[in-house]
Amino acid sequence: MEKIPYKIYLEESEMPKAWYNVRADMKNKPAPLLNPGTHQPMTAEELAPVFCEELIKQELDNDNAYIEIPQEIRDFYKMYRPSPLVRAYCLEERLQTPAKIYYKFEGNNTSGSHKLNSAIAQAYYAKKQGLKGVTTETGAGQWGTALSMACSYFQLDCKVFMVKVSYEQKPFRREVMRTYGASVTPSPSMDTNIGRAILEQFPGTTGSLGCAISEAVEVATSTPGYRYVLGSVLNQVLLHQSIIGLETKAALDKYGIKPDMIIGCAGGGSNLGGLISPFMGAKLRGEADYRIIAVEPASCPSFTRGVYAYDFCDTGKVCPLAKMYTLGSGFIPAPNHAGGLRYHGMSSILSQLYADGYMEATSVVQTDVFQAAEEFARVEGILPAPESAHAIKVALDEAKKCKETGEEKTIVFGLTGTGYFDLVAYQKFNDGQMSDYIPTDEELQASFATLPKM
Amino acid sequence: MEKIPYKIYLEESEMPKAWYNVRADMKNKPAPLLNPGTHQPMTAEELAPVFCEELIKQELDNDNAYIEIPQEIRDFYKMYRPSPLVRAYCLEERLQTPAKIYYKFEGNNTSGSHKLNSAIAQAYYAKKQGLKGVTTETGAGQWGTALSMACSYFQLDCKVFMVKVSYEQKPFRREVMRTYGASVTPSPSMDTNIGRAILEQFPGTTGSLGCAISEAVEVATSTPGYRYVLGSVLNQVLLHQSIIGLETKAALDKYGIKPDMIIGCAGGGSNLGGLISPFMGAKLRGEADYRIIAVEPASCPSFTRGVYAYDFCDTGKVCPLAKMYTLGSGFIPAPNHAGGLRYHGMSSILSQLYADGYMEATSVVQTDVFQAAEEFARVEGILPAPESAHAIKVALDEAKKCKETGEEKTIVFGLTGTGYFDLVAYQKFNDGQMSDYIPTDEELQASFATLPKM
Repeated sequence: MEKIPYKIYLEESEMPKAWYNVRADMKNKPAPLLNPGTHQPMTAEELAPVFCEELIKQELDNDNAYIEIPQEIRDFYKMYRPSPLVRAYCLEERLQTPAKIYYKFEGNNTSGSHKLNSAIAQAYYAKKQGLKGVTTETGAGQWGTALSMACSYFQLDCKVFMVKVSYEQKPFRREVMRTYGASVTPSPSMDTNIGRAILEQFPGTTGSLGCAISEAVEVATSTPGYRYVLGSVLNQVLLHQSIIGLETKAALDKYGIKPDMIIGCAGGGSNLGGLISPFMGAKLRGEADYRIIAVEPASCPSFTRGVYAYDFCDTGKVCPLAKMYTLGSGFIPAPNHAGGLRYHGMSSILSQLYADGYMEATSVVQTDVFQAAEEFARVEGILPAPESAHAIKVALDEAKKCKETGEEKTIVFGLTGTGYFDLVAYQKFNDGQMSDYIPTDEELQASFATLPKM
Repeated sequence: MEKIPYKIYLEESEMPKAWYNVRADMKNKPAPLLNPGTHQPMTAEELAPVFCEELIKQELDNDNAYIEIPQEIRDFYKMYRPSPLVRAYCLEERLQTPAKIYYKFEGNNTSGSHKLNSAIAQAYYAKKQGLKGVTTETGAGQWGTALSMACSYFQLDCKVFMVKVSYEQKPFRREVMRTYGASVTPSPSMDTNIGRAILEQFPGTTGSLGCAISEAVEVATSTPGYRYVLGSVLNQVLLHQSIIGLETKAALDKYGIKPDMIIGCAGGGSNLGGLISPFMGAKLRGEADYRIIAVEPASCPSFTRGVYAYDFCDTGKVCPLAKMYTLGSGFIPAPNHAGGLRYHGMSSILSQLYADGYMEATSVVQTDVFQAAEEFARVEGILPAPESAHAIKVALDEAKKCKETGEEKTIVFGLTGTGYFDLVAYQKFNDGQMSDYIPTDEELQASFATLPKM
């Protein structure tokens, strides 16, 4: 049999020409977004002031299994895709495991993560609609960077509200966005009604993702020619991110490899949803079976300790309600939390699939995550993003189990990005200053109390 | 004709199995290293306390055109190589130029540059010799990072002396090295005689590359089981870096593409020498002709304004003398210099080829370099290292000339790395705070006065 190369690259001609919409194969569709006032499903008309038209169609489309990727987006994808599916020969050797380990590496682009896959799609549809620009929020900055890159390519204006604490502590991410021509405003700001109100109430606040979302939405809806875009959670985002899973599956199929388990980290679900979509589709259609494992931080455990309920997507409560595994929109991860994946909720698609028993979820503490990151980096070369290292941790554990049992399992995991902008966290780990925090049941009960009354 | 893809990746089976040694095809061999005391050519025996045995052989080998790449190194290469040769379709479109632009992108690994190509080779030979570890110096940190990665792979100890000002201003580079298990010491340090002497004489000094070299050499020669390794300038480094040019040439040949010009940035010459080696070989053998263009900073212009003479490789004057285009070992780039490539001298191989008229050299000011970097990033996505952007600047200029003349020239340039750790410089540029500095003739005359009397 042909030896499997270290890195499987698809040819350009083998790259997916359509995204895959897993909703088409779901018997139980994900619950619709609800109007926060009326609690009725949001219509396309209601969403139109906030989102681009074509993206609303994609958001609401539960039926079409394949949606063509426009040529312009495919051309952009060709600049940094296909991403490699890497066979971790060196890691297997070091672990002395009979397991076969593969990872889909999405970090080989300047945004440093998979976020660019959806950013370029969202920018394209905004441009096609004749808009002047888009607004968004960013926390750590991966999504903001990806969107800046996409907007500069299509020569769209890009206004990013960056959580103030990140704006100040991550000046390099901010500079990357500026280099791509985006305007970056620390949030809360004096530019919006919501920002001014929050600053008046909490003068020293360093901001939150929820507040930044609210500011970005306000600017989008009050500025002619602008719309708001979001990098995770939404159905449209998982659709675009299906490119990850489609390429992974094509690469595996090319060499006749059948995975036993597929592992991905889960924050809002954009990477995990994208990676697993075509595999999940096969599972839903009864054509194949795999273990599908979501890995989340023990400090922000939406799947493993959250409730499945309608919740606010943002702390400002201006966005539609989504049904999801959630900790409550009032949930705030502990201050020592370093590893990303800090969203209180989870993609509605993944939530439904999890509720229906099609996937597993597990949680890991951050010192174990950084230990796994270091172990991986020293053998496979790549310095992983802390987010990605959640998946690494569980993949290593599974590979070590195989060593004990002698089973030759095939493990596939998503390596979503690189950790070049996360070195404050690595430093803490290297200095032995990192600690773990797991919220108590009482703390979770308190944050569940912030759920809307339905 | 088959459409040329956006990214040409060689198959693993097409990857070079031997490095190419351009010295074998040079009629005028590069001048030998001289003993700084006797001014006689350094022998293998004299070099043995400093360098690994196999690397000394490579350093002194002017005859063998091909040197086999050991399997262990080829296996490591497969984790991040082949690097893509990218057809810059989007850039061509934006420039509306008839030129065909290609770049060989070496930034897709955690060291962020081509430096890893030689680091892994040097670590391998150190391991093979049964050494415990290696020492080196690093300025900006690319080489130190690459060596840390290579040493962690072979489980060798790695002691890096990092110029103090960089150690303090680039804590993230330092953390990457620590994550790979290297010890990183700010230089000058109290760990060496040379460091202590310098600190006594200049208590507030923030260090220099020359001082860090001296400390690293002292530790290597005084610690059993250690040797010193260097990331540029040396013949052995250009040999290892020939992998860049070999892959580039194989990719071009695969599609029948004949370049008109090959452009690379030049500091100590490791990237440029590696990129051009096989092309230069064809040129030396009279089989082909290309323009070969070295691009250097106007603030540190060794080729364009230096003298071709024997000089010290380090300011501490403990290393052998090398004949090269040099500004004098006392040359210090202006404090506002941001773009790397700050070495006072140049590879002896490239110096000889330049003296013999086989290549051109040009210099560019840094604001133009960052302007070109931004122009490139916004269209091609990749945020380039400032070093790499020197080559981009000249490639853009040549492509724009083609637009004027209508010539369909094929331009190949080396994109050596990414700028993720150079955002202080980008910020300065984004804020309009970056200025240019070109040394005066009087300043150069003063630094030429630091040349050794021969």
